Amino acid sequence: MERIAVLGAGSWGTALAFVLADNGHDVRIWGHRNEVVQEINERHTNSKYLPDVQLPDGIKGYGLLEEAIEGVEIIVLAVPTKAVREVCHQISKVGKHPYTIVHVSKGIEPDTLMRISEMIEEEISSSVLKDVVVLSGPSHAEEVSRRQPTTVTVSSRNMKAAEKVQDLFINQQYFRVYTNPDLVGVEIGGALKNIIALAAGITDGLGYGDNAKAALITRGLAEMARVGSAMGANPLTFSGLTGIGDLVVTCTSVHSRNWRAGHLLGKGHKLDEVLANMGMVVEGVGTTKAAYQLAQKLQVKMPITSALYDVLFNGIHPKDAVDKLMSRGKTYEMEDLVDILGDRMC
Amino acid sequence: MERIAVLGAGSWGTALAFVLADNGHDVRIWGHRNEVVQEINERHTNSKYLPDVQLPDGIKGYGLLEEAIEGVEIIVLAVPTKAVREVCHQISKVGKHPYTIVHVSKGIEPDTLMRISEMIEEEISSSVLKDVVVLSGPSHAEEVSRRQPTTVTVSSRNMKAAEKVQDLFINQQYFRVYTNPDLVGVEIGGALKNIIALAAGITDGLGYGDNAKAALITRGLAEMARVGSAMGANPLTFSGLTGIGDLVVTCTSVHSRNWRAGHLLGKGHKLDEVLANMGMVVEGVGTTKAAYQLAQKLQVKMPITSALYDVLFNGIHPKDAVDKLMSRGKTYEMEDLVDILGDRMC
Repeated sequence: MERIAVLGAGSWGTALAFVLADNGHDVRIWGHRNEVVQEINERHTNSKYLPDVQLPDGIKGYGLLEEAIEGVEIIVLAVPTKAVREVCHQISKVGKHPYTIVHVSKGIEPDTLMRISEMIEEEISSSVLKDVVVLSGPSHAEEVSRRQPTTVTVSSRNMKAAEKVQDLFINQQYFRVYTNPDLVGVEIGGALKNIIALAAGITDGLGYGDNAKAALITRGLAEMARVGSAMGANPLTFSGLTGIGDLVVTCTSVHSRNWRAGHLLGKGHKLDEVLANMGMVVEGVGTTKAAYQLAQKLQVKMPITSALYDVLFNGIHPKDAVDKLMSRGKTYEMEDLVDILGDRMC
Repeated sequence: MERIAVLGAGSWGTALAFVLADNGHDVRIWGHRNEVVQEINERHTNSKYLPDVQLPDGIKGYGLLEEAIEGVEIIVLAVPTKAVREVCHQISKVGKHPYTIVHVSKGIEPDTLMRISEMIEEEISSSVLKDVVVLSGPSHAEEVSRRQPTTVTVSSRNMKAAEKVQDLFINQQYFRVYTNPDLVGVEIGGALKNIIALAAGITDGLGYGDNAKAALITRGLAEMARVGSAMGANPLTFSGLTGIGDLVVTCTSVHSRNWRAGHLLGKGHKLDEVLANMGMVVEGVGTTKAAYQLAQKLQVKMPITSALYDVLFNGIHPKDAVDKLMSRGKTYEMEDLVDILGDRMC
């Protein structure tokens, strides 16, 4: 059994600590809020982020990152995209030997347009960084912590490291872990689906129905695969768990905070107001900005992302943006799809 | 403006008549229940199949098929898969000149393993059959009749005929119609998604969550694309509106009767009882049988379809079937996906 540090005591970090402890590992979870750490140690609960869940034995809360990672070889990085650099900087500063970093964040950094694994590699000095592995897929923390059947995918430039992480997390009862060698595709799929989830929340908030949402998901997936391919991803990955799987669960579930934020926007609330009321990070907002910049840099058409960018940052009314999308000229369906795979087909 | 006959006064036939009448066409709708036809003519409603909807002017109900199709060139065939042959036989018997048949049924015939367009061509004598066009996509009748934004795809062996049908149905306000030349893929996608919707209803009925459903949809899409390719469809079509789009809307919506039937099965009700209580045709049941036979004939792996076949026809308990699916050995995600497109990639 392994000693593992989970950095980040939000809902997903706590749920992953739950799985690892269920598998018999010795799990340390680090959080920056003292009251959360204290509650984990004293009551074995994390009521703010994972209500009504009793954590298994074998999870210990830490308030100091340095103590949490002392003597471990595996670090699970479960912090928002915005906090990745700061936490990695700390690991680099206090780390004593090379770590395998398993990141579970879903974002792209605006302006630098870096994926999470690239940010990690930039921040952690190579003397204390062994491998970076991403774990991603359709997985609400709330369901994982109720031991509901869940499937995720791991990827890495070093697939031996990914397989090691697969072994740590796999649980025959409820947590299946697949491997996929397409690191770029796995990282990008998880990030981009939050854009479409925000848009799906908006159409729901506007009172449109399932037919409109199905069209949005279909076109959204095409858009994700298009920009992903331009970044070097295998377009097939977008047909897998970290693509369509994660997209569907995020667009159709009340658990999704990106959908919920979009829903409030569709109901007419302002972005500032929505973000202030959520109390949790809404990754899709920053990712929309980054993807908009990526589309311009890579000269890729991303009509849904552009429409959402206009709503979030240019004050366009959601209804006008959706109506414009719905009335686009193109009516030959394969044009859009062939764009993606066309040049890879024989 | 065109004179068009819609055969079948169920919810989808009535909703399509609604769109055509909205577009200014002269629409005749034929139903085999006198009371439905009478209600359409006297009250401009079809309360059994499309409650709370006021039909536009320009829709007239007919009790005799012969009268409904007299003098029309376009026939929209909106009957269940089981009734396709019988109704086509009647068209062939009483028809006086060549018709373009627009079919909107979603099924495959068990035993013969024929697509709907093949059944139509077999039943209607070539002297009264001009073209067959399929119209399919993510579209709940209830939402269409509330003029909610909806997108569908048309296909045909004669794309000129498909474009003509596109022109008849397209409505700038709420009904977008795309074309796709892949007739096999468009027909098969609409049929096969009902299998996955039944399975999704079962996992929901068993109390499993969104994570499990996302995995099922992802794997289900792979399975659809795999057998579709073996039948000659373009695998890309399954990434479009009639594939993933229709799959998502059917698996995640309470409107879907296939999902509802699966939900009752997951709750422990018996198939006979479920079908008796639905009061509407559940296409997925017959399609599961047909797809199971197709998988054997074409030597294609369809684990979800096989599991559902066992539940529907071999008395296997839904929970045992789902648990078996969830614990399958394969953990290299791309294996499944590469199966589909692998031999078409350069």
